[in-house]
Amino acid sequence: MSKAEAFQALTIETLPARLGSVDALTSRIGKDSSHWKVKEVGDGNLNLVFIVTGDKGAAIVKQALPYVRLVGESWPLPLKRSFFEYHALVRQEARAGVGTVPAIYHFDEAQALIVMEFLTPHIILRRALIEGRMPPKIANDLGLFVARTLFRGSDLSMTARGRKEDLALFADNVELCDISENLVFTDPYYEAKLNRHTSPQLDALVEQMRSHTELKVEAQRLKHLFATKAETLVHGDLHTGSIMVTDDDTRVIDPEFAFYGPMAFDVGMLMANFWMSFFSQRGHEREGSRAAQRDWLLGVIVEIWETFRVEFERLWHSERNGMLYSRSVFEDQGDDAGSSAALIGLISQMEEDMLGFAGVEIHRRILGLAHNADFENIEDTDSRAACEARALQFATSIIINAKFSMSLEDAVTLARDCDDGRLPLDSDEGHSQ
Amino acid sequence: MSKAEAFQALTIETLPARLGSVDALTSRIGKDSSHWKVKEVGDGNLNLVFIVTGDKGAAIVKQALPYVRLVGESWPLPLKRSFFEYHALVRQEARAGVGTVPAIYHFDEAQALIVMEFLTPHIILRRALIEGRMPPKIANDLGLFVARTLFRGSDLSMTARGRKEDLALFADNVELCDISENLVFTDPYYEAKLNRHTSPQLDALVEQMRSHTELKVEAQRLKHLFATKAETLVHGDLHTGSIMVTDDDTRVIDPEFAFYGPMAFDVGMLMANFWMSFFSQRGHEREGSRAAQRDWLLGVIVEIWETFRVEFERLWHSERNGMLYSRSVFEDQGDDAGSSAALIGLISQMEEDMLGFAGVEIHRRILGLAHNADFENIEDTDSRAACEARALQFATSIIINAKFSMSLEDAVTLARDCDDGRLPLDSDEGHSQ
Repeated sequence: MSKAEAFQALTIETLPARLGSVDALTSRIGKDSSHWKVKEVGDGNLNLVFIVTGDKGAAIVKQALPYVRLVGESWPLPLKRSFFEYHALVRQEARAGVGTVPAIYHFDEAQALIVMEFLTPHIILRRALIEGRMPPKIANDLGLFVARTLFRGSDLSMTARGRKEDLALFADNVELCDISENLVFTDPYYEAKLNRHTSPQLDALVEQMRSHTELKVEAQRLKHLFATKAETLVHGDLHTGSIMVTDDDTRVIDPEFAFYGPMAFDVGMLMANFWMSFFSQRGHEREGSRAAQRDWLLGVIVEIWETFRVEFERLWHSERNGMLYSRSVFEDQGDDAGSSAALIGLISQMEEDMLGFAGVEIHRRILGLAHNADFENIEDTDSRAACEARALQFATSIIINAKFSMSLEDAVTLARDCDDGRLPLDSDEGHSQ
Repeated sequence: MSKAEAFQALTIETLPARLGSVDALTSRIGKDSSHWKVKEVGDGNLNLVFIVTGDKGAAIVKQALPYVRLVGESWPLPLKRSFFEYHALVRQEARAGVGTVPAIYHFDEAQALIVMEFLTPHIILRRALIEGRMPPKIANDLGLFVARTLFRGSDLSMTARGRKEDLALFADNVELCDISENLVFTDPYYEAKLNRHTSPQLDALVEQMRSHTELKVEAQRLKHLFATKAETLVHGDLHTGSIMVTDDDTRVIDPEFAFYGPMAFDVGMLMANFWMSFFSQRGHEREGSRAAQRDWLLGVIVEIWETFRVEFERLWHSERNGMLYSRSVFEDQGDDAGSSAALIGLISQMEEDMLGFAGVEIHRRILGLAHNADFENIEDTDSRAACEARALQFATSIIINAKFSMSLEDAVTLARDCDDGRLPLDSDEGHSQ
């Protein structure tokens, strides 16, 4: 398929003919494309995803569509997101290591398609968590992934020119950033058209939140950070649905929202999705207690943060070769204390921002357009609403308290309290109706 | 001169022949280029600047050189800075109004030259201040200039795509940002090769500063903000040498350091240069007291900030059509209080950052490579050192205290105290030797 050809969406029928001459694919799955089996498995909101199986093996073909798949052609979305996904995957693999993202076999910019490794027997982490599974390596793997990608994509590590060129490259990812800017940071805080929430159970709480001035100001301040704090190449959509796992392996997928943003954004979104899993567990207890799963999830959150900090600190000392926090004014003068103080300041700022981003992510997954299966799969709406209300109130509290030096550990304690019905706000109208 | 021609530096002799067919120039100063008078007046560190006078009038021709003029060919610097200067001037004129920057007649990218309005009888503001003049309009003009350029170049006003495209365009201004990143934020805080300071008078104080861990951490944190807080198109070099004045007119020139950075940077650098003028005044008192000038300078600082705030607030209410601090969650819900609270938060954050940037700018102008005539013109080195020491200690104090809610008014009071010999630090070794 030549790059000059106009974009055409693949179908199960046309795929073998159209990709049958791509060596990067045929060399892996087999040359005889007439024998290929093609299955469309895209369950996401945006793209086509095919599993293509030949005599020798299988691969994934992911193709962007010029609109949002979930909504249809009325919501156009540029094919170029595939370009950003490809470039982000390449950088993430270089920064976090081979085997942290799917291997890339082929990229066709004009057709907006990426041929990549078929991960098996991996499943989506969100599904694993809903099923009550506890993949043992995820906290460590994810902590390392975020520390390495965020550190190595920043001015702490890159050359000034390198980072600025990348910043300019990804600055063109306007439409996907726009989705986050509006759907994540704005829509949940007023009656936006695309919103939905569990009603009427949450109505009163939602109304309360939308008239909570301090909360809205904080959410908008976080949007300001998101849009302007161009620290590093972030994944941009790092929730548990963007992670595939086995007991032995963890892969981060789908970085099409990648852009230069705040370091704390990926970490915050990740934490938020573990917290949402935590708050959803009581809704999944029909087949037995999820107490152990709940404990484990809070432990994962603590371990991710701890792993992140330790690895970030290691990189700070061993790979801080960029222009920020110059060694010339610290270590080179024998001022190791200065270097450590600067690191502590930076991490403490990240902790603050991270809690804020986590809170906003929780809000938007319960009040906005894109909901999480963690809650959605709870069939009993009263039970779901109770879980959601606890999560919403927890989220409000961490957003408000983040700037008053709440620590991640405080937040974990608070999550436990909220889940046990000891809510942080003086009113619990939201879930008692 | 065709754009395709290879770059060639202009000389007094070649300029008329080379620019004699540029209509934008000849229509203003006269077609008969053989009668043009050409004078080279570049007193800056980087570029060639010619005044070209013909039968009908005069114009400025500014041409970049592929190296730092002050240093020579051993320090190469890309011609492209002329491109950034041109694009910044166009945006500043659109945002702050015709007559706030020199009018642009012609831009030749390949020759890195800009033909622009000859400002007369304007003089450089720094020179006016050294001479003890008090141009009456500057505080108001400069307050409006920064408010309008900073607000209208940000996501508060621009479309998301518009700002991101501009961010990408200016991200290529790497080398000039690099100068600021190193010369402003790093070099002053260790014994960098290019540094110089009034010695031996300041030696002890300088040593004290370079072992002041908290100060260095703050300076590096400010560098981090400078490099990553991509809020708006800043001028990037807004000192009193980049401003030309008469009693009736104020023009901002030389924006070749323009890039997407923190709103507070331009304001901080501007304030720093007025504070340096303030602290230098005692060194210029041989011909009479400068007490009135000192009072006036502090008044200018207060008035710039007040004008900035009032204008920024006006724009917030009347032109906030960008994606930040969406009206949809505030005014559209009748929550005007939320909008005001968000504005107060934003301005208060700018005030903090501004004081930090101001402090760093003062330090680097006394300890780094590029010094200010305000101090340099004080011939008596003891007197100069005394002025500089007061400024240095003031600057350290505002850097450290900015994050503890020091206000601009507090800083102005502190400046008065420092200038009167009531220093903020427990040691004054620096200037008593």
